[in-house]
Amino acid sequence: MIARPTNPMVSSLLNEMYHVTTAYAYWKAGKHLDRAVFDLCHCKPPFGGEFTVFAGLEECLRFVANFGFEDCGIDYLRSVMPSYVEDEFFGSLKALDCSQVIIHAIPEGTVVFPRVPLIRIEGPLWVVQLLETTFLALVNYASLVATNAARYRLVAGSSKVLLEFGLRRAQGPDGSISASKYCYLGGFDFTSNLEAGRLFGIPVGGTHSHAFVSSFMGLDEIALSRTSENTKFCKDFGARIQHWLSKLKAKFYSFFSAVESLHVKETNESELAAFGSYALAFPEGFLALVDTYDVMKSGVPNFCAVALALHSLGYKARGIRLDSGDLSYLSKQARAFFRSADEINGFGIGTQLVTCYKQPALGCIYKLVEVNGHSRIKISEDVAKVTIPCKKQCYRLYGEQGFALVDLMQKDEEPAPQADEPVLCRHPFNLNKVYVVPKRVEPLLQCYWKGSLGKLEKIHQKELPSLKETREYCRQQLAAMRPDHMRIRSPTSYKVSVSAQLYDDFHTALFNEGPVKELR
Amino acid sequence: MIARPTNPMVSSLLNEMYHVTTAYAYWKAGKHLDRAVFDLCHCKPPFGGEFTVFAGLEECLRFVANFGFEDCGIDYLRSVMPSYVEDEFFGSLKALDCSQVIIHAIPEGTVVFPRVPLIRIEGPLWVVQLLETTFLALVNYASLVATNAARYRLVAGSSKVLLEFGLRRAQGPDGSISASKYCYLGGFDFTSNLEAGRLFGIPVGGTHSHAFVSSFMGLDEIALSRTSENTKFCKDFGARIQHWLSKLKAKFYSFFSAVESLHVKETNESELAAFGSYALAFPEGFLALVDTYDVMKSGVPNFCAVALALHSLGYKARGIRLDSGDLSYLSKQARAFFRSADEINGFGIGTQLVTCYKQPALGCIYKLVEVNGHSRIKISEDVAKVTIPCKKQCYRLYGEQGFALVDLMQKDEEPAPQADEPVLCRHPFNLNKVYVVPKRVEPLLQCYWKGSLGKLEKIHQKELPSLKETREYCRQQLAAMRPDHMRIRSPTSYKVSVSAQLYDDFHTALFNEGPVKELR
Repeated sequence: MIARPTNPMVSSLLNEMYHVTTAYAYWKAGKHLDRAVFDLCHCKPPFGGEFTVFAGLEECLRFVANFGFEDCGIDYLRSVMPSYVEDEFFGSLKALDCSQVIIHAIPEGTVVFPRVPLIRIEGPLWVVQLLETTFLALVNYASLVATNAARYRLVAGSSKVLLEFGLRRAQGPDGSISASKYCYLGGFDFTSNLEAGRLFGIPVGGTHSHAFVSSFMGLDEIALSRTSENTKFCKDFGARIQHWLSKLKAKFYSFFSAVESLHVKETNESELAAFGSYALAFPEGFLALVDTYDVMKSGVPNFCAVALALHSLGYKARGIRLDSGDLSYLSKQARAFFRSADEINGFGIGTQLVTCYKQPALGCIYKLVEVNGHSRIKISEDVAKVTIPCKKQCYRLYGEQGFALVDLMQKDEEPAPQADEPVLCRHPFNLNKVYVVPKRVEPLLQCYWKGSLGKLEKIHQKELPSLKETREYCRQQLAAMRPDHMRIRSPTSYKVSVSAQLYDDFHTALFNEGPVKELR
Repeated sequence: MIARPTNPMVSSLLNEMYHVTTAYAYWKAGKHLDRAVFDLCHCKPPFGGEFTVFAGLEECLRFVANFGFEDCGIDYLRSVMPSYVEDEFFGSLKALDCSQVIIHAIPEGTVVFPRVPLIRIEGPLWVVQLLETTFLALVNYASLVATNAARYRLVAGSSKVLLEFGLRRAQGPDGSISASKYCYLGGFDFTSNLEAGRLFGIPVGGTHSHAFVSSFMGLDEIALSRTSENTKFCKDFGARIQHWLSKLKAKFYSFFSAVESLHVKETNESELAAFGSYALAFPEGFLALVDTYDVMKSGVPNFCAVALALHSLGYKARGIRLDSGDLSYLSKQARAFFRSADEINGFGIGTQLVTCYKQPALGCIYKLVEVNGHSRIKISEDVAKVTIPCKKQCYRLYGEQGFALVDLMQKDEEPAPQADEPVLCRHPFNLNKVYVVPKRVEPLLQCYWKGSLGKLEKIHQKELPSLKETREYCRQQLAAMRPDHMRIRSPTSYKVSVSAQLYDDFHTALFNEGPVKELR
């Protein structure tokens, strides 16, 4: 069985009032058991890019496996519905589960494009309607932040270490846990968030705080440190640091230009003491935060003095952390001072990453596409929100060089396209069409949940990959797309098309259901 | 006692790795029990405004009341710390609680300004350091979204109904619950989120879905509806609706200009059937979503037909909901069609509200200001991040007209300013100073938590107000500020000043701790 949701807040009441009023209206109209198909898809990739990393599926499946209203939930619903609502309705609501629901989805971590159904949900109309908002809540942010992380990874390349530091600025406590999970999925290496580390096995990382630096007064405090096996040297460690700091002075002064050096003062002694003390606690892999006072005039030389003192005792320091100011300028200055070949080799990213500052929401939609075998459509003044009707299957067609060429949506009952045979791909909205001869055809929607008409215990579900496996799959997905589609700026458009049969059904429905403005 | 955190994800491991490494370094240095004071404050109000609504305090206090690492948490920490870290450290960590912590804060829902401590946390250095990230996570988003909601309320005025509809686009499932809670605090009236409604007693609201509309095929489906006491009329309801729709046709055609009316088709019958069916389920307070097909050519006349049919049976319809397109244009058009005096009287706001689209993060900081009685300072290349040192008390000084004139920070031991006596208020960073004679002086920081040196059971805490009380307090706060400070665009700056004594301590520390660039 799929386990309980990781997040205990994801109850069946994490839903919107209007789905319950709608459920009641379905029930009153006797339509609640109509067989419906909904698509969850997105209309536009985020951040001005061309792609989205699909994430949140596992949480949707956990939600489905545990879906149902408990007594206290029913009591609450009774309290907010009009008093004339029948007891019988609440009784039926209490008996609901997802045993008659079938869910197909694109695997989590796949690179996906607009309008292709990410999840296809079939089942009794009122049940699948009640899943709408929770599914959207679980997919929207997960996909948004995974995509954001993937874009950082694409820019940073594979050799840099990327750390997610977003907990304090995330939107709500669980916003941060979702952020850590899906940033890791999208290609980050570490999180600073311990709870996310514990829940999902994500490696955790971090150094020390600014307050640690400012809590020290002077170098004499080092001598008070607790010793242990590997730090018996601490009694004279302060003297060693001072020795190296004075040796550094010449280098330090010559480093700055004549004018700049006029302003050079002594380095900050609180900071030097804090670095020394931190090195005693973590002699292996000493890493210091150098921007509490002044990066170049205090932080960097203080770090060097402590690193050299450690080195003289057989330990190797790991590096510095810059947390404010002009990071590009300071990192180059620090590098010049170190006279080493190392550039920045890791990035810790917080607010911009987890809140998706550039675009803080993704607008996935969840729309009825078929009911009792009849195709349904939602028309919108906003063309991006017009849904493509019918129960669909989707394929990704690959070319000779191994790159994906186009995604194709068909009606579910149409035969799958075949490799090495011409496939007609139509633009969904205009008359453009093209024949593609794929080298390989990949069906995108797979069955993840198949209810067994009332017998919950027999429900079958696909074995789900671990987060780490999904992360690796996502990495492969990103690497397998043609790089110009993945560009951060001005990416080449990736085509999503429909079969001739689906095009006809779509445009017949458009014609029948009323005027559509601005349809391009 | 203060109850467990509302959100079970807010465990003591909802923290960052670097606080644990820092805690270890404090412990090694023998400084972990040093008596420290931290300030939590913000540097800049969000959204280009001049004010922030402070929120999140109650959750911080719940966290403090339950702070401590359980065995599984300690096991996890052991697994991520270097292997040489002593057992004794983990033993001490396991014994930690907040029994020696004292917390002062500004009441939740207060209108606050930059640099004034929102929360002042005193206690053993390592304990109060470990609270940093969780406090920031609980305050940042809560205050951000409460401020956003308050700004919507200020624009909408007090007569409009404001509904929060953000669940599906919020950042993580709990992001949505926090959003609903703090939007209500900031002045919203309803949420669509049932779980938030249940947890916090927020009124819930909503209509029906687009899928409900598109799930219908024709008017004959209405006759199949379940009847109950108050809807025995449903058998001929379809005929009544058609009667009114045909009567409306003349009005409908004459409403559009000659050219526009050329494009007018029949209204959509699925929609008409759906409205009729929904009216049967909710005859009292019928409210319809009119933008599934075409607002003016289908949704509005269909709504009117059903509303008039209901009216002929003695019920009064409530209104329409617009969910897409040019809301300003459409709402005016719809109003003209209704020939009534009602404008839009309610707004449901989702994405822009809950993700704080215009600025999706607030940058509160948590900085050491005193340790063992010595003032401490964090210097930054970014002047907005320089902290004002010392344990402080803060006052709001009111003028003759009852409006707040200025906030004043003093050293904690200074005597409070007195009404009707001149008070010297200095600009924290430059030489500007002014004497203010307040009519009333309000101390801003109140004691909310007072540890009793190891005796947890004796811990005293202030009785906390309910969410509804805090919402009302916030409303009064917003109404009591001078309106030009509250303006959405180009607000007048509100002054935050320091006492002469605090100014001197601050600038002595600045001088002692090294060069500061760009200090204005």
